[in-house]
Amino acid sequence: MVTNTPDVLTEEVADTAIGLLLCTAREFAQAERFVRSGKWLRKGYPLSKATLRNRTVGLVGMGRIGKAIARRLDAMGVPVAYHTRHKAADVSYRHYRNLVDLARAVDVLLVIVPGGAETQNLIDRDVLEALGPDGILINMARGSVVDEPALIKALQDKTILTAGLDVFAHEPEVPAELIAMEHVVLFPHLGSASIYTRTQMDQLVVDNLLAWAAGKPPLTPVPVMISGDR
Amino acid sequence: MVTNTPDVLTEEVADTAIGLLLCTAREFAQAERFVRSGKWLRKGYPLSKATLRNRTVGLVGMGRIGKAIARRLDAMGVPVAYHTRHKAADVSYRHYRNLVDLARAVDVLLVIVPGGAETQNLIDRDVLEALGPDGILINMARGSVVDEPALIKALQDKTILTAGLDVFAHEPEVPAELIAMEHVVLFPHLGSASIYTRTQMDQLVVDNLLAWAAGKPPLTPVPVMISGDR
Repeated sequence: MVTNTPDVLTEEVADTAIGLLLCTAREFAQAERFVRSGKWLRKGYPLSKATLRNRTVGLVGMGRIGKAIARRLDAMGVPVAYHTRHKAADVSYRHYRNLVDLARAVDVLLVIVPGGAETQNLIDRDVLEALGPDGILINMARGSVVDEPALIKALQDKTILTAGLDVFAHEPEVPAELIAMEHVVLFPHLGSASIYTRTQMDQLVVDNLLAWAAGKPPLTPVPVMISGDR
Repeated sequence: MVTNTPDVLTEEVADTAIGLLLCTAREFAQAERFVRSGKWLRKGYPLSKATLRNRTVGLVGMGRIGKAIARRLDAMGVPVAYHTRHKAADVSYRHYRNLVDLARAVDVLLVIVPGGAETQNLIDRDVLEALGPDGILINMARGSVVDEPALIKALQDKTILTAGLDVFAHEPEVPAELIAMEHVVLFPHLGSASIYTRTQMDQLVVDNLLAWAAGKPPLTPVPVMISGDR
């Protein structure tokens, strides 16, 4: 029997995704370092190259967390489209069966699919080229989902504008090429990492174990087949 | 005749406010510096002390931008209350006539009132004490609205937990006491500062001038009396 802690972390991860997206598009992390370095005394921080005000976000994945992110984008007036292998029955956003087609149609790709062999290097050179020179890549999934050398090259060559990454291929190792770039945003896998949410997740693990010990059905069993997120 | 550019900047400033709130509650700016310093190789970034998952946000001000911020918080499942002098007719959030009462009732105060004499030092020692040791202050208004020495003392004494500031009393001067604190978030007045939104604002200024030159009514005149935001 395998259990997990799905709903407890959904909204926390969606908060992190929106924060990472805003930090990346509007250069918040870079601007904050600018203040702390004292540079603001000499000149104003430049206007940000990007904004969410004229962008469409393409979600790669439309599971629980994807839907929670999309709900936030709706409230921000930011149009959403998405790629999954199978169209989701319960959302009305435009669906792209083909990921390159989605990348071509949007200005932001926000990746929130499960890791594993099926999604290994899903975001590759072709996808990044389709995203294009104004494009922003946000990875909230797993480091394995993005072809990291291809991403580094795309950033160096300005094939895309910038990226916000919560996860890395060999974390906690972060490639020096990424740290050398002032405009990318690098989070240390913050996903659900608040004391409050991790305590809730721990409690759910305990509750599952107690249910098991008492001969009761588990509270949050993992289905035998997982699909649908992609 | 005085004109302004109200709706063009509303959504951009609301984006910045949500980004600043997330950066502050979830320690995104600090965590990003942690990655860039190489510290992640030695240990994980600690779980954030705060989250939005168990908090109510008290908006100080409920004008256009306040409403755009509240709409985003609704989508995040974060309860909203607010303080204005007069109850807003078109929102159903709980209204507090008294700012100290609001500060006592919530975990976050997000300030988005106009500047000027009426709101000078509105956020003072009493308000910060009422906000309390888990409290977060976000200033998206003007530096003049917060009693900055009182805020610095409240942060040093842990009267409140932390603060996110987009504006400062004597900007671009930022008090060294604030820069010395790793957990506060300091933005260089980013409010509406994207190329896209500032270009839209410039265009609206031009359009107002062209209307005036053509003897037509202005597109976005400033009302003789401004009130309601507070």
